[in-house]
Amino acid sequence: MSRQDTITLGHGSGGTLTHELLDRYIFGPLSNPHLDRQHDGAVLDLRGPLAFTTDSFVVQPLFFPGGDIGSLAVHGTVNDIAMCGAYPKYLSLSLILEEGLLLTDLERILQSIQKACLEAGVQIVTGDTKVVEKGSGDGIFINTTGIGTMHPKAHIGVERIKEGDAILVSGTLANHGITIMSQREGLSFASPIESDSRAVHEPVLALLDELGDAVKLLRDPTRGGVGTVLNEIAQQSKLGVQLDAESIPVAPTVNGACEMLGLDPLLVANEGLFIGVIDQSVKEKAIDLLKRFPASAAVTFIGQMVASHPGQVVSHNAMGGKRVVPMLPGEQLPRIC
Amino acid sequence: MSRQDTITLGHGSGGTLTHELLDRYIFGPLSNPHLDRQHDGAVLDLRGPLAFTTDSFVVQPLFFPGGDIGSLAVHGTVNDIAMCGAYPKYLSLSLILEEGLLLTDLERILQSIQKACLEAGVQIVTGDTKVVEKGSGDGIFINTTGIGTMHPKAHIGVERIKEGDAILVSGTLANHGITIMSQREGLSFASPIESDSRAVHEPVLALLDELGDAVKLLRDPTRGGVGTVLNEIAQQSKLGVQLDAESIPVAPTVNGACEMLGLDPLLVANEGLFIGVIDQSVKEKAIDLLKRFPASAAVTFIGQMVASHPGQVVSHNAMGGKRVVPMLPGEQLPRIC
Repeated sequence: MSRQDTITLGHGSGGTLTHELLDRYIFGPLSNPHLDRQHDGAVLDLRGPLAFTTDSFVVQPLFFPGGDIGSLAVHGTVNDIAMCGAYPKYLSLSLILEEGLLLTDLERILQSIQKACLEAGVQIVTGDTKVVEKGSGDGIFINTTGIGTMHPKAHIGVERIKEGDAILVSGTLANHGITIMSQREGLSFASPIESDSRAVHEPVLALLDELGDAVKLLRDPTRGGVGTVLNEIAQQSKLGVQLDAESIPVAPTVNGACEMLGLDPLLVANEGLFIGVIDQSVKEKAIDLLKRFPASAAVTFIGQMVASHPGQVVSHNAMGGKRVVPMLPGEQLPRIC
Repeated sequence: MSRQDTITLGHGSGGTLTHELLDRYIFGPLSNPHLDRQHDGAVLDLRGPLAFTTDSFVVQPLFFPGGDIGSLAVHGTVNDIAMCGAYPKYLSLSLILEEGLLLTDLERILQSIQKACLEAGVQIVTGDTKVVEKGSGDGIFINTTGIGTMHPKAHIGVERIKEGDAILVSGTLANHGITIMSQREGLSFASPIESDSRAVHEPVLALLDELGDAVKLLRDPTRGGVGTVLNEIAQQSKLGVQLDAESIPVAPTVNGACEMLGLDPLLVANEGLFIGVIDQSVKEKAIDLLKRFPASAAVTFIGQMVASHPGQVVSHNAMGGKRVVPMLPGEQLPRIC
């Protein structure tokens, strides 16, 4: 493989090699009027209030069933904006490239970014590219930071959660984490498992259109999984979370993989899932609405907020058994996103 | 050194270790009402138009005379917002930590970030922290992304530049690049050299207050240096840049170091400098105003826009000599910022 096929330190100099790299691999595929100005920043005509959110992506492998680091970097930030109760509008894109990265891989990742942006209706409007020596990075790290405009009916806040509020999850758990883990360990399963990486803003915004402030909280359970996010909600709301163990949706193959690997699906990462805490009076409306969207077709109610055991998440099964669901303690799977 | 003194992979899990790390090292030092909500994103009440800009920082060494990667990450993005003609308001902060990073170094960097934010009047309102295995990163990489509100009198754009417009630089060249290079090479000089890393938004905003749309373009010459930015301006404006070689301000020690190292100060990186292209009729006003600010006390006019040699930067000396100033071709000094 020739030096011309890979990223070199000169690509990070800020000089002509940087310009050539940006023109061909970044500005080309991502072209839009904001980015085409090639200034250090973008000027955006937006009316507040705004949502603002950032994420860096370091996932390994860079390409996996159901997505890659590029699509993940768009979906992750689009979803974080949606969790604020906002319409995703603009993203920044900052790349840290390792010397030796194949330009064909960079090209494939940028195409995936652009496809994910078009699907989600967002634009990359400003960016940055740095290069580090071989051994000081790992192929590519991506930061996306997003701006969205708040939904006028959104009134999201953990302080609005009350006893009796219902907890929904928009789809089946643990697909992303199990996909990444099985890629790394070289595991394969009878039916293939794919990451759930996808944008969920459409069903979320439709929920806000329809239910307004009956939507109390939205969270996307990525690293740490559903269990960790529910523990955060319990601690911050000073209420308990009571889960119905049998209602927690996990695809059979994923469930089998979790059993084989000794993992609790509640503590495995997701990338295309959201948790909603909503007023119990609108449960049926919420289900009817969310089932209409592909991204939330498998929506399920998994529990409710209770006054007993404040700060704790307790799972109840049909046999009357109970267990406390912990927050993910430490290392489970590094570099999941 | 014990495992408790350094970053471990568990700190990136999203679970309890991540929460402990964030509470002690991130939310503690950076505390403000937005960040204290600990949601995935911040909700900001801003009126458009807005400036939006991103930068990732990978500088080595992490600590250097005149600053560190933390202060640099704040100054860099504050300055990029100012270059849009905007008031810097809010930043996001995203960290990629390498397993084994000393927690004392992380603490020192976060304190430096907070100090730089307080001095610049900006707040970190949302963030993200990832951990990669030892050998897959290099201590710490930092992304900051910023939002600012446009100055009502700003009318910045390369298309507004005309023949005869004057070009100013806010201070002496090449301090940052020479500082980093001398740290890496173990060079020392008779009088110490420091990075010029600092926020320049105050003089920039004062210039817009006073001169409004007589300010045609603002740019901060970081990677690639003043010469590369002037080449970009020449190419984009389809005019030439004529420089007065003797007027280009370089501190004597820095100049000596450049000569010793065979570097052109015009192509060495800066971090606390801006270039302004302004109407020639307001030159004296601009100088009088900018001299009042410590960050631009050494402001100097270095040349003008000309119709001859469009797309080229040509430096003239007092002896009648001319030379074409190139864009920095490729690798000079990796990881300068």
